[in-house]
Amino acid sequence: MLVLEGPAGNGIGFGIARALGTECRSVAHRHFPDGESYIRVPHVPRGEEVVVVQSTYAPQDKRIVELLFIIDALRRVGAGSITAVVPYLAYARQNKVFLEGEAAGADVIMRLLSESGAEALVTVEPHDTSMISKFDGRSAIVDPVGLFAPAIVKDVKSPVVIATDKGDRKRAERLAVLLGCACKHVEKRRNLKTGDVSAANELGDGLGEREAVIFDDMISSGGTVELTARMAAAEGCGRIVAAASHLIMADDAYERIKNAGVSKIYGLNTVPFGKAVTIDVSDTIAKALVSLSD
Amino acid sequence: MLVLEGPAGNGIGFGIARALGTECRSVAHRHFPDGESYIRVPHVPRGEEVVVVQSTYAPQDKRIVELLFIIDALRRVGAGSITAVVPYLAYARQNKVFLEGEAAGADVIMRLLSESGAEALVTVEPHDTSMISKFDGRSAIVDPVGLFAPAIVKDVKSPVVIATDKGDRKRAERLAVLLGCACKHVEKRRNLKTGDVSAANELGDGLGEREAVIFDDMISSGGTVELTARMAAAEGCGRIVAAASHLIMADDAYERIKNAGVSKIYGLNTVPFGKAVTIDVSDTIAKALVSLSD
Repeated sequence: MLVLEGPAGNGIGFGIARALGTECRSVAHRHFPDGESYIRVPHVPRGEEVVVVQSTYAPQDKRIVELLFIIDALRRVGAGSITAVVPYLAYARQNKVFLEGEAAGADVIMRLLSESGAEALVTVEPHDTSMISKFDGRSAIVDPVGLFAPAIVKDVKSPVVIATDKGDRKRAERLAVLLGCACKHVEKRRNLKTGDVSAANELGDGLGEREAVIFDDMISSGGTVELTARMAAAEGCGRIVAAASHLIMADDAYERIKNAGVSKIYGLNTVPFGKAVTIDVSDTIAKALVSLSD
Repeated sequence: MLVLEGPAGNGIGFGIARALGTECRSVAHRHFPDGESYIRVPHVPRGEEVVVVQSTYAPQDKRIVELLFIIDALRRVGAGSITAVVPYLAYARQNKVFLEGEAAGADVIMRLLSESGAEALVTVEPHDTSMISKFDGRSAIVDPVGLFAPAIVKDVKSPVVIATDKGDRKRAERLAVLLGCACKHVEKRRNLKTGDVSAANELGDGLGEREAVIFDDMISSGGTVELTARMAAAEGCGRIVAAASHLIMADDAYERIKNAGVSKIYGLNTVPFGKAVTIDVSDTIAKALVSLSD
């Protein structure tokens, strides 16, 4: 088996290869002066099983097209089965049509990957886990919750885990169990027109001596974490940190969160973000690849 | 029939609708803060035949994904047959694999469009006209050469048409016939490694009293037009203009061409470029649509 690190592999391809004791090679890539992407895969023996690692953070559409080009190139050189590892899967929030006439981005992306010629798909905790069922082949979702505990326990001594949404409560409880602490959640109201979010509950007493660990699957605009951090601060939490799988950190998300009192951020290397404690998800993906081929 | 103007329709959708005496509506579009594209098509009666106009100039991959999202949204609302009009078709120069391991971008794009659910495809003079045969449905290529003559004849009084490549000679000859003038061509050598281009012939005598009309299918980096303009200047051409279907004008293409003596540029509205005489291709596309549905 050969692992290929795509232009947005973010080092995960090399991590997977290390974990599996196999080789990783980089895909050659550049942009033409007009902006078109150019892709060239390294030599792959005919029939060789290939794992392609390509995340799809911004610019998402370019990353997706690069991935499709890599798979096209692999088919041309006669690679064997192709597994696409997409650590961060873009468009997972466009999983439903809210207004007539909208596109369902998640469905389109799943269709593109299904039709690309990739036989299997592995991703890390997409915002909508059901979207992967639309991939026409074997697939696996990597659960990274367990990876956060060892990183957080190092410097958060008396944590309370706070889920930013009622729907995320169960996920947060799993981290709380690992940290041996209580779990709270915010019930939020989202204004569907403006996208603004407000809280519909209180976190409750007894947080004053705790360090808040705000836990989410992704931080994009930072609005939800900001709201939660302000609530935790109002309850007297002495210290506030935030942890999320995918640190998209759009626009001024970092400043928003920091200004709301978050002193540290933990995230996976599915999306590069330099100001966080980065947790490597490579080994966990490698295990998923092994299970998938069993 | 309803025409939809995509985010990169560049006004051509409205021009087509005018020519066909039908209605054109704009597709709503925006970007989320993280960079993901959002698409919402206007109301389309169930079963209505729809023509979607979306060019794919830079950022090409975003334009392609937007087009796929528009077609997805149209299928969801139960549109009838969908025709994609892609005035400028990206990746047409990646039509062959030169080195082992390269992707064939043109093939990938044709596959994406074939699998999108669009029944028909119309484009304007792609760099490789054979690529459209890989579209799995009805298709038409719009020939814009005839549109250049009326625009050029207005202020070029004693033209000589110069093709930038031997392979483009026939195309240039057609313009020369319409302008009632001679046709020359440059035989060029391209260094496959650096992409640098040099001339392998001379244009010949008798150009001194002529105005050079350099004619190409597209101007991207401007290198080929620059070379041709310098040759025309060396032959003593009093004035040099350049005409091309798709004015990609990457990086400093405009300055390169201008510095080589090109005083005026003509191009179609398949790609927006503010410093050229813009020729509207809408009517010609409308005619192709009528022929296609006959």
